[in-house]
Amino acid sequence: MASIFTKIVQGEIPSYKVAENEKFYAFLDINPLSKGHTLVIPKQEIDYVFDLEDDLLAALHVFAKKVAKAIEKVIECKRVGVAVYGLDVPHAHVHLIPLVKGHELNFTLEKLSLTPEEFVSIADAINNEFVKM
Amino acid sequence: MASIFTKIVQGEIPSYKVAENEKFYAFLDINPLSKGHTLVIPKQEIDYVFDLEDDLLAALHVFAKKVAKAIEKVIECKRVGVAVYGLDVPHAHVHLIPLVKGHELNFTLEKLSLTPEEFVSIADAINNEFVKM
Repeated sequence: MASIFTKIVQGEIPSYKVAENEKFYAFLDINPLSKGHTLVIPKQEIDYVFDLEDDLLAALHVFAKKVAKAIEKVIECKRVGVAVYGLDVPHAHVHLIPLVKGHELNFTLEKLSLTPEEFVSIADAINNEFVKM
Repeated sequence: MASIFTKIVQGEIPSYKVAENEKFYAFLDINPLSKGHTLVIPKQEIDYVFDLEDDLLAALHVFAKKVAKAIEKVIECKRVGVAVYGLDVPHAHVHLIPLVKGHELNFTLEKLSLTPEEFVSIADAINNEFVKM
């Protein structure tokens, strides 16, 4: 069965899209640790990030860097933290977490509640920066 | 002034080395969240991971994957988690954290206390697997 993330890539489940290319897709985490918290995934459904072939893994992180640079232009933060946890959804995903106060790379923290309008506004702003790069 | 990690690479400060090649160095975190918790760094001293050139960033993660696969052969774990936080030492470093129970990617958890002998034993075992790859 397709993972929830594959359904997102295919548009069967909606998402707040931040960036996309042929191989990768990035969208806002709907349970964000900070504003702009983004998930970057390969379109190919592979559970464990270290099971990605070297070339795909390398390209994933170069794509994530571009997304992170776009996030930094929109969200005022010290930098963007990176985490790959991977025990929840069986489809590799890189968390890009804007470190605003600094401590937000902590999955036990309470998640932010944002309105759909706020998600759309953040996603569009990041996407606008992404496509300029 | 050289970062503490540059001094580790240069051997001025000792470390429990896990893996090395021309561009990267991996060693055990001395305040580990789980046994086998490893830091992977570029030898080139660059503060922020997203300031690495694309090729170097890509190669860093391919090297980290190889280290993670070696860790998995030594440490019984569900998988190896990845984090780049980067607000402490101003030299980019990727945390590879064996997820034994599953929740260990959490920098607020109490760190393990291991003896020097335990560190040496873990580092050597991972290195033995790494060099076979």
